[in-house]
This record gives sequence, structure tokens and C-alpha cells, in this order.
Amino acid sequence: MSEDVFDKIAIIGIGLLGSSIAHAANAYGGAAKVALWDASDDVRHRAARVVHGAVCDTADAAIADADCVILCTPVGALGEVTAAIGQNLKPGAILTDVGSVKAKAASDMAAHCPDQVHLIPGHPIAGTEKSGPEAGFASLFQDAWHILTPLPDQDAAYGEAVERLTLFWKGLGARVETMDAARHDRVLAITSHLPHLIAYNIVATAYDMESVEQGEVVKYSAGGFRDFTRIAASDPTMWRDVFLTNKDAVLETLGRFSEDLAALQRAIRWGDGEMLMREFTRARGIREAIIDAGLDTAEADFGRRQLDPNSEN
Amino acid sequence: MSEDVFDKIAIIGIGLLGSSIAHAANAYGGAAKVALWDASDDVRHRAARVVHGAVCDTADAAIADADCVILCTPVGALGEVTAAIGQNLKPGAILTDVGSVKAKAASDMAAHCPDQVHLIPGHPIAGTEKSGPEAGFASLFQDAWHILTPLPDQDAAYGEAVERLTLFWKGLGARVETMDAARHDRVLAITSHLPHLIAYNIVATAYDMESVEQGEVVKYSAGGFRDFTRIAASDPTMWRDVFLTNKDAVLETLGRFSEDLAALQRAIRWGDGEMLMREFTRARGIREAIIDAGLDTAEADFGRRQLDPNSEN
Repeated sequence: MSEDVFDKIAIIGIGLLGSSIAHAANAYGGAAKVALWDASDDVRHRAARVVHGAVCDTADAAIADADCVILCTPVGALGEVTAAIGQNLKPGAILTDVGSVKAKAASDMAAHCPDQVHLIPGHPIAGTEKSGPEAGFASLFQDAWHILTPLPDQDAAYGEAVERLTLFWKGLGARVETMDAARHDRVLAITSHLPHLIAYNIVATAYDMESVEQGEVVKYSAGGFRDFTRIAASDPTMWRDVFLTNKDAVLETLGRFSEDLAALQRAIRWGDGEMLMREFTRARGIREAIIDAGLDTAEADFGRRQLDPNSEN
Repeated sequence: MSEDVFDKIAIIGIGLLGSSIAHAANAYGGAAKVALWDASDDVRHRAARVVHGAVCDTADAAIADADCVILCTPVGALGEVTAAIGQNLKPGAILTDVGSVKAKAASDMAAHCPDQVHLIPGHPIAGTEKSGPEAGFASLFQDAWHILTPLPDQDAAYGEAVERLTLFWKGLGARVETMDAARHDRVLAITSHLPHLIAYNIVATAYDMESVEQGEVVKYSAGGFRDFTRIAASDPTMWRDVFLTNKDAVLETLGRFSEDLAALQRAIRWGDGEMLMREFTRARGIREAIIDAGLDTAEADFGRRQLDPNSEN
């Protein structure tokens, strides 16, 4: 047990991520003890059947003596949860999270985090479109980026805490980066938040086309639409909170997207094939950069297939 | 050889689809002889190294005595190609295509198709983001829909030709449907054309964000963006032609998409979490319909992985 980074971790919120952290800590090490809690009775009962670790009846029981507490709730609940457990966190413990928005997460948690606790916001760039404790699996974080956004101007003990947390996530297979929270939120607005918003939107638009039957949309979805429906199957509560808490960066990015789309629309209306050709060729380039960077591994696909009961038909 | 639907097929245009038809006809049967031609010297030379069938020096040599000629060029070239080969098509032969837009394809081909030739436009809902003859593979059409849009008010011989062509595509593994061309174009505008336009657009928007480095966009693309880059890697020429030839349906669909997106944008700006929750939950439903319909098979993924040198890293 002496090899474990932490003696005990506590996971608050047992969805896809919370459950996966428990599975991964069990599979790859990192914590001698794992305790979990979720605000929902139903989720706690379901989690007890699938998760490796002790599912506790109260948050306080889960966090008691924990060296590291990982909040895995939707971003909008982080302040409230920190307020509820803050006073009972062990002095010297680490408080972190997995929220997709970091500036608001940091300020909401900081408002209720005791001074003796090291608040280190974090975000794993990993997930599937599934949610709930049953969706978790140990290899979710393998080769995925994990971004930590440490608070500025902290002491040496804080620096050591960041090192321990980095070691923990590396142990689960992640590649860890640090970044300031505002930069994280700008980068994720374009790489993750906007794509999800667009996917939700196109699926809703298709739903409402009265000139096309929904059955046809489903039937011929292989033409490209299916990829969007998979993204749009992600947890609605989590994503509502992302858009409400990263409002500025999302609206800025969305404004640019809409301007660019209007230019393509105009090119289509006026038959400007050269403009379309130029833009499409340019877009192709970024895909090549991703392949050149060796980033298009089958890992994400693997997770998806493993979880999707229909995927091997 | 007597089992083959056709004695000889000719494939004009040797990209992903033309090459795949040649591979599939070789693997599963359907034609005793396969002849191919492409307008590009380079493509013909490359095709000769990878494709099963005779790569001819001229289009006329390829179509000589062919019972079925399959045009696999971008949609915008179909009229010109038909004009070039029309007079030398064998009387009683079938002329078909694989274009993603059917109304314009049908009228462009019909303008140059001799009376004794059966023009039966078609569209396989199958593909990958790869292009060129090297991208073709035999199983591309397995379990994929193939939509035929036969011309209205034809004679019995035409009906028999449609049956033969149906049998040919079924032999390659496809599920064949018939539909009128205008309906096809409306359905595909939402299931395929708009998703591709959106994907191209979001990738270009990301490219131009000066507040975010391109390297970061690539690095953290697993958050959702990567799916869009894959779609946006599709052949620019093919997609330019799709948007120019299915202009009305694409603009109508795009207009609705933009209206819906503006409503989401307003909800984010004003913090209307209920509206976001309602729309995201609704979008999730269509994904469930796709899974219920058993449509989310691994077939498309399989093709992609097989072709992507980085996918098994």
C-alpha cells in the first residue's frame, strides 16, 4: 500500500467520471482506500453494485480522513457541494474536481474551501456519451489529457500537493498539463463546448423538419448525422452547466462560428464554388495535423464500443 | 460467371467509391468483367496498382459493351461525362451514378443519355473521410443503404433494369431502397449535407481563433472536436459540388439550423437553464431511437479504422 499516492481518496458524485476514477484507482493503483458518495439515493444504490470502493451513506463519511477529495458533480453544483463538506475536510487534504469549466469552478469552490485545504481544480479530457455509475470503466483516462489549473501565488506545500495530484492522475494513465483557468476555458470552448452545442442543435433541427420523417433521419444517419447524435447523447445536466458557467467564451466562439457559417451560406446561395473549395481544403488541413500528431488513436472508439450494446452487431 | 448480374460493368471515376465497387464486385461477385477509367492520368496509374479490374486508357474503352456504367465522379461532372460517353453506351445498358445529390444528377445525366439506355440514378449511403483509389475496400457497402431514384413513367424494360441494378447492389451487401429524387435530396440535406457543412465550418472557425493556438486545438481535440475534423477531412471537390447542386434543400435546412442555434445562444446569454435542459434532453432522444433501431453498428467504424494508419496505435 505504501506505493499509493494517497491513503484515501473520496469521490463525490458517481457518474461516468466518478465511477471511472474508482475503477481506475482499483485497476492501476493510486489510493489505498476509495470512498464514494452521491446525492441521489438511486445512484448510490446502483453504484454499490458496480463500483470498486465503499459507497457511503453521507458525504461526511466519504470524506472523513481523505487525503484527496474529487468532486465529480456537474459544474453548477461545485459551490454548493464545497459549502456542504468544506468544514469537514482534513487539513492538508487536496480538493479537486473534474468539471469542464475551470474559472467558475475554481471561484465557486474557493468561496467555501478552508485555508488549510489545497484547492487544485482539474479537468480530464476524457468521456463517452454515456452517463451514470454503470458507464464507468478503468481505462477511460489512459492516454487522455488531464488539465490542472492550479491557483496562482501559492506556497511550497501547495506545489507539493500539485505534484502529488499529478502523480495520481499519471498513475491512472493520463497525460497531465497545467494551464491557467481562463486559458483552459477558451481552449475548451472551441474544442469541446461549441462542438457539443452544435451537435445538440443539429439533432433538434432534424427532429423538427416536418418535410422529412424522423424515421428517415434515423435510417440514413450514416451520412454524417450519426456522429452528431452520439455527441448529443451526452448528459444534459452536465452540459447545461457548462454553457451557463463558460458563457463568455462560448458566446464569443459561437459568434465567430455563426459569422463563418453565414459566409458559407452566402457562397452556396451565390454559387461561389471557389470559396467553398478553399474553405473545405483548409479544414482538411487540421485533420492532417491531428493524424500527424498521432492523436487519432482508437482509444476513444474503444471506450465507446465497449459500452455500446449495439456496437458489435 | 453465369451467376453474375452483369457480364461487364464500367466504372468512370476511380476514387473511394469507384475503387470500392471494383473491390466489392471482385470479392462478392456481380460482374464477370470490371473496367475502369478516370480522367486523371495520375489516378489511373495509381488505380492500376490497387484495383481489381482493367484500368483503361480511354472512357470509350471502359464502357465498350458494358451492361452497366457507374459514374463515380463528383456530382458537378456528371453532365459532362454523360455527354462524352453517351453516344457510345450499349443500347439496353444501364447508366447509374453514386452522387450525393439526385435531382440535379438525374437532369444533368438525362440531358445527354440516349433513349435506349436506362438511366437509373443512385446513391450509396456509405463512405469514409478518405479519398482516392487507395482508399477503396470491398466491404464498404455491407449493410449500408443504397438509394435508387428511378425516373417516373418508364416502360417494363426499365422496370427490369431497376431490378437488375437492385440485385447488383444487394450482391455487394447493400440494402436497397427506391425514392423520388426530390425527397432523397431533402432527407440527405439534413442527414449528411448539413452535418458536413457544419463540420467544415467549425474546423475553419477553430483555425482562425487567434486567442487559442492551433496546437492546443489539435492536442485537446478529444473533447468533441475530433469527430468534426474527421467529417471535415472528406473530399473538398465532392462536397463543393454537393452544396452547389442541392442548394435549395441545403439553404432551407441551414436556415432552420441557424434559427435554432440563435435560440440556444439567447438561452445561454440570459442564463435560461430550463430551455437548455429541455433541448438537450430532446436531442438525446433521437440517439436512443438510433440505438433502438440497431443502426449504430461498428461497420462504419470498422472501415475507418482499417484505413487509418494511426487508428490502432
